[in-house]
Amino acid sequence: MRIHHLGMAVEDLDDSIALYRDLLQAELVDRQRNDKEGLEAAFLKVGDAELELMASLRDDSPVGKFVARRGPGLHHVAYATSDIERSLADARAAGLELIDDEPRLGMHGSRIAFVHPRSLGGVLTEFVESK
Amino acid sequence: MRIHHLGMAVEDLDDSIALYRDLLQAELVDRQRNDKEGLEAAFLKVGDAELELMASLRDDSPVGKFVARRGPGLHHVAYATSDIERSLADARAAGLELIDDEPRLGMHGSRIAFVHPRSLGGVLTEFVESK
Repeated sequence: MRIHHLGMAVEDLDDSIALYRDLLQAELVDRQRNDKEGLEAAFLKVGDAELELMASLRDDSPVGKFVARRGPGLHHVAYATSDIERSLADARAAGLELIDDEPRLGMHGSRIAFVHPRSLGGVLTEFVESK
Repeated sequence: MRIHHLGMAVEDLDDSIALYRDLLQAELVDRQRNDKEGLEAAFLKVGDAELELMASLRDDSPVGKFVARRGPGLHHVAYATSDIERSLADARAAGLELIDDEPRLGMHGSRIAFVHPRSLGGVLTEFVESK
């Protein structure tokens, strides 16, 4: 297991990309608009992990509500797994509440699933199995 | 640059260690009490990064105040740097507000410095130069 990416809710996507480029010499590897989730996301490479900078496209999106409630900042952590069914079974065995009972399709053909922060010390946690 | 560790404020250190061991097969590599900061911290290895689980030892400690205000959860992100003076100069050049103008001593002989979250999108950010 390793950290796959770290999600950060930001207010201005372009400003945040420029800031992390200057600060970490982080390379922008992808940028995608997700109308269903109401966000635009940028991915910057930091070592073998990525920062996912997420800007809300509307106030009632999940990220928009997060920023309204808590301000911008750290939003979730994602771990790379080679076997997402096994990771979900481990989470269930540990008594955790899953947001996704079954893996769903993520970016670039990956499969992803989220664990609810209220069962994991306030940390919204994602598993990612790359294609 | 890579993610050195991810700091999480937790309510019960033993419970949190057990949870991340079960969930991520993460190995406990260190556990330290820091009376000056009013916290006890556990470090678990996840890939080439670590999770730093931090439990407050008193209500008026920085982590105690964080948990009282926001609940447990993601607290800070630390990036490994091979040249902390250069990283601080880059942060200054980007107009960021430093908590530590000069590096100070961290764990295991490392040198560390923090950037204020209000100048970095709400994310408390640390640089770590290992010994």
